[in-house]
Amino acid sequence: MKFNVLHTDSGSNARVGAIETAHGTIQTPIFMPVGTAGTVKGVHQRELTDDIHAQVILGNTYHLFLRPGTEILTQAEGLHKFIGWDKPILTDSGGYQVYSLAGNRKIIDEGVTFKSHIDGTKYVFSPEKAIDIQREIGADIIMAFDECTPYPCVFDYAKNSMEMTHRWLARCCTRMDESNGKYGYEQALFPIVQGSTYTDLRVQSAETIAEFNRAGNAIGGLSVGEPAEEMYAMTEVVCGILPKDKPRYLMGVGTPANILESIALGIDMFDCVMPTRNGRNGMLFTTEGIVNIRNEKWKGVNECIDQHLGGYVSTHYSKAYLRHLIISKEMLGAQIASVHNLTFYLWLVSEARKQIEQGDFSNWKNKMVKKLMQRL
Amino acid sequence: MKFNVLHTDSGSNARVGAIETAHGTIQTPIFMPVGTAGTVKGVHQRELTDDIHAQVILGNTYHLFLRPGTEILTQAEGLHKFIGWDKPILTDSGGYQVYSLAGNRKIIDEGVTFKSHIDGTKYVFSPEKAIDIQREIGADIIMAFDECTPYPCVFDYAKNSMEMTHRWLARCCTRMDESNGKYGYEQALFPIVQGSTYTDLRVQSAETIAEFNRAGNAIGGLSVGEPAEEMYAMTEVVCGILPKDKPRYLMGVGTPANILESIALGIDMFDCVMPTRNGRNGMLFTTEGIVNIRNEKWKGVNECIDQHLGGYVSTHYSKAYLRHLIISKEMLGAQIASVHNLTFYLWLVSEARKQIEQGDFSNWKNKMVKKLMQRL
Repeated sequence: MKFNVLHTDSGSNARVGAIETAHGTIQTPIFMPVGTAGTVKGVHQRELTDDIHAQVILGNTYHLFLRPGTEILTQAEGLHKFIGWDKPILTDSGGYQVYSLAGNRKIIDEGVTFKSHIDGTKYVFSPEKAIDIQREIGADIIMAFDECTPYPCVFDYAKNSMEMTHRWLARCCTRMDESNGKYGYEQALFPIVQGSTYTDLRVQSAETIAEFNRAGNAIGGLSVGEPAEEMYAMTEVVCGILPKDKPRYLMGVGTPANILESIALGIDMFDCVMPTRNGRNGMLFTTEGIVNIRNEKWKGVNECIDQHLGGYVSTHYSKAYLRHLIISKEMLGAQIASVHNLTFYLWLVSEARKQIEQGDFSNWKNKMVKKLMQRL
Repeated sequence: MKFNVLHTDSGSNARVGAIETAHGTIQTPIFMPVGTAGTVKGVHQRELTDDIHAQVILGNTYHLFLRPGTEILTQAEGLHKFIGWDKPILTDSGGYQVYSLAGNRKIIDEGVTFKSHIDGTKYVFSPEKAIDIQREIGADIIMAFDECTPYPCVFDYAKNSMEMTHRWLARCCTRMDESNGKYGYEQALFPIVQGSTYTDLRVQSAETIAEFNRAGNAIGGLSVGEPAEEMYAMTEVVCGILPKDKPRYLMGVGTPANILESIALGIDMFDCVMPTRNGRNGMLFTTEGIVNIRNEKWKGVNECIDQHLGGYVSTHYSKAYLRHLIISKEMLGAQIASVHNLTFYLWLVSEARKQIEQGDFSNWKNKMVKKLMQRL
């Protein structure tokens, strides 16, 4: 995997780059739609490419391991072929879901035992196992197995957990380097910086992670409930340490404002369930601001969802119709809102790239953060 | 509204025709996807036109009256504009849903009182009210308000109900002829033959309905649980009486076999929730037969859903992937199955038209009924 920084912003740490993978190039900064169980909920694969202009999607190791399982994925020669998606895929390691979804989990240095949230079956994930599964899934970018600490988190827990995450990383790297991609193409491993909201831990973690010298680096354990200011502060500290010539991925972030502010700090990659999950509940991100389509004020408003954004769903369907669909719990409402919000998120990062190239990112960002986060 | 019979089959009563409406021509025999509340569940409007090749869709007066309501529909200048669909629409009168969904319903000659299945609000539907609402919805073809009798139904109830349906029809026609389309285009009213499974009642009803001399005629009260043989018998009797130069619509029918057999009897139009509802549960109609995608045998089968049918969803996605999506209750599973099954249904009637034109309908039909209904 190669990463080239193509432009840097003069007024911030924002940069435009290109990640070359076996399944094509990813232009950064980029937002990655979340395809939890091998599907971006409510969205067809051709909508991802043709309408949303997604360049890379995310899969969840925990979900894919439980269903359809690695036997089925191996038989299909990997997730790309299984789901009919030939652009890049990134998989998280399953760590986050084990903590947030699974029951009866026990974390020891060897790994984590947990019970499936689907049928209660007991499993063990270890750093080695997480790599093995991700080899079988066949994502272009695979993530190290870590512990994502909750917020707030006492210092001692955060420190011990971070140190375990570092020990696990060493084991992930060993397993990674002693194995090969199962389907004839290269996979890259990204380590994850932890350390909760403690600056000294974040510094220590970023320095440790940087030393592993992998193809890219990620920041985890943020966007878990802490104030945005703390998230930005940690991101800034970590971006100052992580190498400039490697892509930086801020996991699980965030709102349009979070994304623009973090781009300014030097982040290149984002993922978040917000555009799809909030979309299904009727929250729309538009070029004019945030629309809660369930509100009475959108009743009978026959203008299209977002003329300026363009694209099929945003210009073909009216606000009044989408409101009716969401209130009536019709599938098509969730589908339209999901495609619209993802189109918006991909538009946002594409505009950011353009502004960085034109050298006016900071001004534009400050204007857009205000505009995009206002509730219409 | 004009109807032209273009070809008749020598070996059966099947025919190919064209219905001209204000929103374009409908080639018959035709299947109409059901868009209950202004949306064919799980299917985008452009998928209906570009992938499924739907020529006309159906809306439900009962559902649309409750949500979004006629005020919103009038404000949007009718259902076509509200949902972004510029081809023909047919609306049923709401009668069927009042009986099957609403609570506390009381039927008297004046009309029906019922309670909304959504919030319990009490409403009254009458023949006049059903026409008024369908004028506001603005469908190209609107249905008379009838009582759809259940199966089995004692003779006296069936007879009294049929006679009330006839009295209601007279009131529908009066209201229809004394009013105009609200949006500048013509709407046509189809009366409905009732009479349960009693041949003499069906004869009497078909003769009565034919005398009203409307633009088209429908057969209701079938496909409600009676054996297929009884349905075919009633359909044959009624088709022998209904005028040849008007389209005949068999309401709520049915399986691929039901459709082909009824085309042979002289039916021109069909609607049924089966392709979407059964699709959502994992039942696929394919050119080779019926697939229950939940079955273990489709696990890991990486061939596409239906190579012969063609089209995006049927050739892009594999059986193994669709099985995973349906079992994991992922929206995309319901979306793929719905688009696939509707594409199949529209392919089926398009093939039927072709075979009638080529003069080989009966042979083809007998072969296809066997093939399409086998469980793979």
